[in-house]
Amino acid sequence: MNDAVTTTTDGYGHLYGISTGPGDPELITLKAARLLSECPVVAYFCKRNGRGRARASCDVHITDQHEELPLVYPVTTELPHGSDEYRQQIEDFFEESAEAVAQHLKAGRSVAVLNEGDAFFYGSFMHIYLRLKDRFESTVVPGVGAMMAGGALLPHPLMMRDDQLRVIPGTMDEKALRASIDPERATVIMKVGTNLPLIRRIVTDIGIQDRAWYVEKASMPEERVMPLMEAPDGKAPYFSMVLIPGPGVRV
Amino acid sequence: MNDAVTTTTDGYGHLYGISTGPGDPELITLKAARLLSECPVVAYFCKRNGRGRARASCDVHITDQHEELPLVYPVTTELPHGSDEYRQQIEDFFEESAEAVAQHLKAGRSVAVLNEGDAFFYGSFMHIYLRLKDRFESTVVPGVGAMMAGGALLPHPLMMRDDQLRVIPGTMDEKALRASIDPERATVIMKVGTNLPLIRRIVTDIGIQDRAWYVEKASMPEERVMPLMEAPDGKAPYFSMVLIPGPGVRV
Repeated sequence: MNDAVTTTTDGYGHLYGISTGPGDPELITLKAARLLSECPVVAYFCKRNGRGRARASCDVHITDQHEELPLVYPVTTELPHGSDEYRQQIEDFFEESAEAVAQHLKAGRSVAVLNEGDAFFYGSFMHIYLRLKDRFESTVVPGVGAMMAGGALLPHPLMMRDDQLRVIPGTMDEKALRASIDPERATVIMKVGTNLPLIRRIVTDIGIQDRAWYVEKASMPEERVMPLMEAPDGKAPYFSMVLIPGPGVRV
Repeated sequence: MNDAVTTTTDGYGHLYGISTGPGDPELITLKAARLLSECPVVAYFCKRNGRGRARASCDVHITDQHEELPLVYPVTTELPHGSDEYRQQIEDFFEESAEAVAQHLKAGRSVAVLNEGDAFFYGSFMHIYLRLKDRFESTVVPGVGAMMAGGALLPHPLMMRDDQLRVIPGTMDEKALRASIDPERATVIMKVGTNLPLIRRIVTDIGIQDRAWYVEKASMPEERVMPLMEAPDGKAPYFSMVLIPGPGVRV
């Protein structure tokens, strides 16, 4: 894995899933920065009016020598989320994106696909990877997940000794959330978004509100960290988290 | 957090918990490398006959200008693990270690405490941090956890879409392991060690053996990854892991 970027034995380029970390440009690894510099093509998902957070955090490593391949999400505002038509449009978009990456690989150009956080931990890289893994050689460069960046801001270690952890998406319904939050375990709730008030209610019902922290945009200039009970009412940004360190004594 | 290392307002040094990543020297972040370079004192836990993995993976960032503070674990082979005497000796060692770090901080010298993986995710930094956090300013620099390094080696994303994850220590007894491994969730079993045969048996009983991977020394030159069913019989190294990606379709 330490090898420099070259074309592979079949003359194809190599597919890299590059974890760019949680947002702070300094929280990328030396390896990710090096491979990114060496790959002739840099691909990343983004919205029509922005380059996306992964691309932004890698700015200093991308030069005029790179060919950039922005994979621009289609505008789907007119379609109800979860409708068949919405799903089909997103599916088509991922197919086209993977094909655009494949064109470079077939021409012998290695491609670095940027990914916020860690590429195999809820990473968007999977949409490219799953479609191309059987056709091209690939490497995932692991990175600092948002969970680790959030944990670093807490006044207590997230996990110590024999703690157990549950990581759950905050998008689940109330019943599933209640079943998944266990006072005897550390818990990280990702993608809190609109469910912030519900999560606070459940955590309070369970009686572990004094252990629970709310973290928004960890490692970014706008980062915020506060006890969950002091978090603002109403909906939170999609990428906010609730972190509940394990139950052991932490003094 | 981007500030350069300086003494703090009270004239004391600043305490850094530096996550050095899973072992590959290139999997340290730019921020960890920079702060490490800037701190006059570098502390790390190690055994009597070695410098420890965290120190080894930072070799290129440590120069003659650094004062090194190795915190050498006492030899406890003659004491039964878990005995009161053993616990007391270890406890005394952590107290003395924290005090050695505190001496530098009080003299205005910032200290980088090295930590394999991520400092707040089962990290040994907590032994220093919990003892000094109320006396000195401190910052945790998050890093690439062993779990992410292991996940990067799998042929499938560890976590995707709405997957849930459980992270459990492989040191638990059979009953607790059985209760914690759920086929509907992704699972990472850390510290597999002597329990490898037991874990394989449980995973097989549950019927998810085809999803389970065994990973040893992820990101290091000796790294090994294989389906759990092909893992060697008998005891595994302490730092080996079993990773079971989430149940969703991954093709």
